[in-house]
Parts: sequence; structure tokens; C-alpha cells
Amino acid sequence: MKVAVLGYGTVGFGVYEMLKQAEGLEAGPVLVRPGKDDEPFKVSSIEQITEDASVDVVAEVMGGVEPAFSYACAALKAGKHFVTSNKALVAAKGPELAKLAKDKQVGFLFSAACGGGVPFLHNLSLAVQSDEILSVGGILNGTTNYMLDQMQSTGMSYADALSDAQKLGYAEADPTADVTGLDALRKIMLACAVAFNVLPVDGLLHEGIDSFSAADSSYIQSKGLTCRLIASGGKAENGSIYAFVEPVLFERDAAECSVLKNFNMAKYNGKNSGRIVMIGQGAGRWPTASAVLRDCSDISCGRRFMMKPSCEAGSADNACCAHRYLVRIPAGIAFPLPVEACEEADGVSYCRTGEVSVSAMHEAVNKLRADGNSVFFAAIGE
Amino acid sequence: MKVAVLGYGTVGFGVYEMLKQAEGLEAGPVLVRPGKDDEPFKVSSIEQITEDASVDVVAEVMGGVEPAFSYACAALKAGKHFVTSNKALVAAKGPELAKLAKDKQVGFLFSAACGGGVPFLHNLSLAVQSDEILSVGGILNGTTNYMLDQMQSTGMSYADALSDAQKLGYAEADPTADVTGLDALRKIMLACAVAFNVLPVDGLLHEGIDSFSAADSSYIQSKGLTCRLIASGGKAENGSIYAFVEPVLFERDAAECSVLKNFNMAKYNGKNSGRIVMIGQGAGRWPTASAVLRDCSDISCGRRFMMKPSCEAGSADNACCAHRYLVRIPAGIAFPLPVEACEEADGVSYCRTGEVSVSAMHEAVNKLRADGNSVFFAAIGE
Repeated sequence: MKVAVLGYGTVGFGVYEMLKQAEGLEAGPVLVRPGKDDEPFKVSSIEQITEDASVDVVAEVMGGVEPAFSYACAALKAGKHFVTSNKALVAAKGPELAKLAKDKQVGFLFSAACGGGVPFLHNLSLAVQSDEILSVGGILNGTTNYMLDQMQSTGMSYADALSDAQKLGYAEADPTADVTGLDALRKIMLACAVAFNVLPVDGLLHEGIDSFSAADSSYIQSKGLTCRLIASGGKAENGSIYAFVEPVLFERDAAECSVLKNFNMAKYNGKNSGRIVMIGQGAGRWPTASAVLRDCSDISCGRRFMMKPSCEAGSADNACCAHRYLVRIPAGIAFPLPVEACEEADGVSYCRTGEVSVSAMHEAVNKLRADGNSVFFAAIGE
Repeated sequence: MKVAVLGYGTVGFGVYEMLKQAEGLEAGPVLVRPGKDDEPFKVSSIEQITEDASVDVVAEVMGGVEPAFSYACAALKAGKHFVTSNKALVAAKGPELAKLAKDKQVGFLFSAACGGGVPFLHNLSLAVQSDEILSVGGILNGTTNYMLDQMQSTGMSYADALSDAQKLGYAEADPTADVTGLDALRKIMLACAVAFNVLPVDGLLHEGIDSFSAADSSYIQSKGLTCRLIASGGKAENGSIYAFVEPVLFERDAAECSVLKNFNMAKYNGKNSGRIVMIGQGAGRWPTASAVLRDCSDISCGRRFMMKPSCEAGSADNACCAHRYLVRIPAGIAFPLPVEACEEADGVSYCRTGEVSVSAMHEAVNKLRADGNSVFFAAIGE
């Protein structure tokens, strides 16, 4: 099977190199920007790929919703299978692309969009055929895991951890999507679509690590706990889907504590298979390219869908998920939800709440912040 | 696709139940022992399955090499795909079955034979198509992990841990294959076959946990380490394959330390994908049945092989793999390999060796034991 590649940046280069050596796959043309087509294998217009009858698969590793979406539609309409690493594209246009692929009887896979090199969505889409998935989630953003690991293992400040991550290429110049938890949220949306056949597009909640301080790190460690940024998705008893991102505190022997540096961890809980956990590199040239190649091999074996054509956009209901939280607020402020214990230190209070719903917690914190208060919070993991 | 099941024990029951609810799959007849065919869906002779044109896949969950091998050949010759959870069968007859499947243009998959519910071999066989696998391994036996976890978290004796495991159904009445590491060895043989296209059948080495005492557990913990039974396989620089099982000591933040109870952990290191770790239930009705069902779904998607038809039996070379070891010998005995430090306590010496090859270590220990000495050893994990 001949695979054309859209994009020749960090990941595109890796995909093309791996294609040249993969069994059963042939490296096709690579789409680059006009003027950059300085080698025979590079082309500068999408038509040179969609109108090439010898191309079987189009692998998009450009990022962003446009022009990736237009290219994806063109490829599918031309009867070519579509593989992508682009989470923004799939989060925004996934169901539409799945329906188009079905009409044209071709495949649409996106392993690399969630978990990078970790084969999470692949395994999830296989598991759903014979098992009921109860929940999905994990550590889905390498930037923030790197920063949390650095802060908690060395005591460095948030600013130093961010700068360190940027130097190593683990964080963008503008790290907003990562540190606010938005990147992890997009990934859990995709996991929910695969696991529950619903792409949750509203009612979503996300809290990142941008309020986590070295003092918080120190306090948490003194309690024998470790903080990780966790994306969670699942089916509540009433049938609705929950999907959110927030920091979570774990005891020492939790698998999450062994996820260091920029690694990712993806979990699912199947009714029959039980809990399956996968840990690996969530980003980077070769791990991400590996995931794209695995999808291409999968297409050649006959696999067609991760997101079913019947998948529709829907709402998340984060009122149905509840747990206890640790919250750090300025000393003297009363927390508006039930609190079981508080400890004061250096002008702040660390409080443990009773069981409160995710939506109630995020709402309460947003109100306090709107009033100018500095707040950090994390779920207490069980 | 209609799936017939050979065996109706713990796992067979689970497979049949799951088949009734799986999408794209239909539950076929179940082969039981003569006289046990007391319900319409049960049959008592293999011919009732192999001569049934409506059956597409035969799933064997009986265990043991015969009659499973004869049944496997009959099914493949009748043009039916063959899925199995039977590691003894695949370790003994895998390459022969792969060639027969190829001749008949049908599939042969065995996810459940290694890692139970953990989708290890499935992901490995997908990864090899586009990546070079450098090493495979992990915690592949739930019985011994349960016992090690119990001994190290509660201080209980080996005998109590074994009895505890047996009560919970995590250990057989005759636990020999598990506690000697033989079960884990068979699983790493299969992983090597999938990863390196060589089924290592001699030169293999295995050390289990049957020499691990509560005193050893106490000593190891006092050093801040945790012991796990690890199966390892890989390609050495000279191109030969190593494959062995031995206890290994880990620091607190290693992923292996988060693998508790009877869970399994399977790892592989791909040149491009990096290290991928998967943790889940290695045994039990529903996790194992889930793996069998995933293979059936995979067959219906077009996947055909985990072990390629070109896979041949070969030799393992465990002289090419070296590391440092902790070894406990009777006080006053000299250890025949280079030792860097020793600590005496209660009539025994705990010694740390320099870098020694796996084969040299196992050989040295076997000699000491042949002379009647009680010895425990574990690799010091890096």
C-alpha cells in the first residue's frame, strides 16, 4: 500500500523515513508548502496526491483544523484511506470524516492523535467490539507531566520547569493548550468517542497545572502524595458521559507515580478485560511516527474505523462524577463547598473537601478566581 | 463470523458468554468431553465442528499440547481460522501451525497465551511491521507476582503466600510451572517468536521464586528495593536472541513496583516507538476470554498472523546478556563469580556481584545448589 504524507515537519519526516523501511507499505509523495518542493518525492498541491491513482492512504501530520480538514475530505472523496495524528481535526470534524469514509468504503484511523506512541485508541477500538468499556483516561499530555515531575522531584518553580521543558522541546513557545489542560481534554474527547460512540463537545471541564506552585508541591509531598494531570472519561450510571481534566493526587504505589518525564499513560476499564494500563512516549518524532505507521499497517490488514460512522457529537455531564479534593485558597477565605479539614501555612489554607461533584468543584473555583483569589486544587485519587 | 469453542472450563465459559454479545461475531458449538454434551450448543466430537461449514473460527481454550494440537490441525485443514490461549501448544507447535495456516490461507492468533487480558502479543505483532523491536519482557506470571506482593507487603512466609494464592484461585494445586518460572519462560518464548521471528527452544534459562524467603524479602526492603519475577527477551549486538526468567530488584519509582496482586506487565522497546509498557490482569475468566474475543474480532478485520509462517525454532544465547546480581548464600561459602560487596546476617551472606552474564550466574548457582547449598539470587535492575 502506497502512503502519501501531508506535512514534512518533525513528525512528517519521521513518517516518511519509516515508510521507506516498513513491510507491506510504500512511501508516496509528501505534501509541502509551495516553493519547498525541492526534491522529487515532494509535491506542493493536494491534487497531486488525490489525483494520483497509485496512492492508497493519505497520512496527515500537519496539525490545525484547516487546511487539514479540506485535504482530508479531498482524500476520502478520492477513495483514499485517511490516517491522522491531528487531534484538533478529529475533535472538531471526526464524525463528519467517519461518515464520509464509510460512504467511500475506506478507512479513517487516528492512533497518533491521542497518546502519541502509546497504542491506546487502537486497543480501545478493538476492545469495544467485544467488551463494554466503563471508563477511559490517564496522563495524556507529556508537557505537563514533565513539568510536574521536575517540580516534584527537584523542587524547582513552575517558571523554571516550563523553561526547562521548552529547552528540551517538550513544550511549545506558547504552551497554553498544554498547561491549561486543553490538549489533554481534546484527547479524552477522542477516547470517549471511540469507547462510548459519543464525541462530547460541551459540558466539558478542564483544569491544568498553571496554578500549581512549588509550595503546593512541597505540601503535597509532605503528605506522601504525588500530583499528576489526569484526563478522565466514562459512562455514569444514568447513561450520560463524563469527560474532564484535572490534577489528581496519588499514593506512592500508584502506576501514575511511575510515569516520569514526558511519558504518557493511557488506561481503560473494560467490564470483562478489567483495567488495562499502557505507558509510553506520548510525543516526539519517532514515537508519533510509529503510531501513524501502525495505523497504516492496520489499514492494510483491513481495519477501517476507530470512530464509528454512527458516532455523534453530544454533551458531557460532569455533575455525575464526584470525589474528594484538596484545595489551596488564601487564608481567611471560606470555601463554598463542604470541607472536612483545613491546614494553614504561610498565608494559605489547604483544605480537604467532602465528596463533591466535578462540576460543582470547578464552578466553585472559577467563582473564587473571578474574585481575584489564587486557587490550586486537585482530586484525591482513590 | 461464527466461532466454535474447544473447552468449556473457566475460560471457555467466559468466551462463549462474551461471544453471544459481541458485535460481528456469532457463538458456535462448544466442544466438551463425551457425555458432557447436555445442551444443544455442546458437541462431543471435533468432527462436529471441523465438518460444520458454517463455523469460521475455532477458539481453543483447553490447554495442554494434545489433543489441542490434533484439533488445531484438523481445524486449520478444514479451512477454519485458529485462535488459542494455549501457551504450551504454541511454544511446542507454533511454527508448524503457522505454516499450516498459511497453506490454508487462514489466520492463527494467540493473544491470550501471553499476558492474559493484556493485549501484548497483539500490539507486538502490529509494531513489528513498521518498527524494529529491540527487547520484550515483563511480569508475565500472575501467581508469582501475587505471592511476591503478599510476601513483601505483609511479611508473610513463602508457604503462607502460596496457600493464600491457592485459596484465591491464583495458583494451581500443583504450582510448579508458575513458581519455577517455567510458565513465564513459555510466554517469553512466544513474545520472542513474534518480535524476532525466532522461537527460542534451547539455551533458555529460568529461575523462579521458589528460593525466595521472608528473610530475603525483609533484607531487600531494607535496601529500598522491591523484587519482581521478570521474563526478558531480546536481540544482542551479535544478532543472537536472549530469553530468560529471573527475579529482579527495582527501585521504588519503577513501573514494576506498581504491579500488584496477580497483575501482569508486558513491555517492549521499539527502535522508533521507544518503550511501551502495558499493565493488566494476566489471567482469570473474563480477562482471558476478552483476549480470545479480541483475536476473533481481529480475524474478522483481516489480521492473520502473530507468528509468521517463516518463524523457525532456534537457540537462545544467554551469555550475551549481563548485569549485576544480589545473591544470598550460606555464610562462609565463597561465591565463584566476582563479588563487589558482602553483608552477613543470621548465618547467610548477601553479596553483590560485578557484571556477570546471565548464563554464568545461573550456572554458578546451579552448582552451589547441587552441592546442597540454599541460594537465592536476583538481578539488580537498572
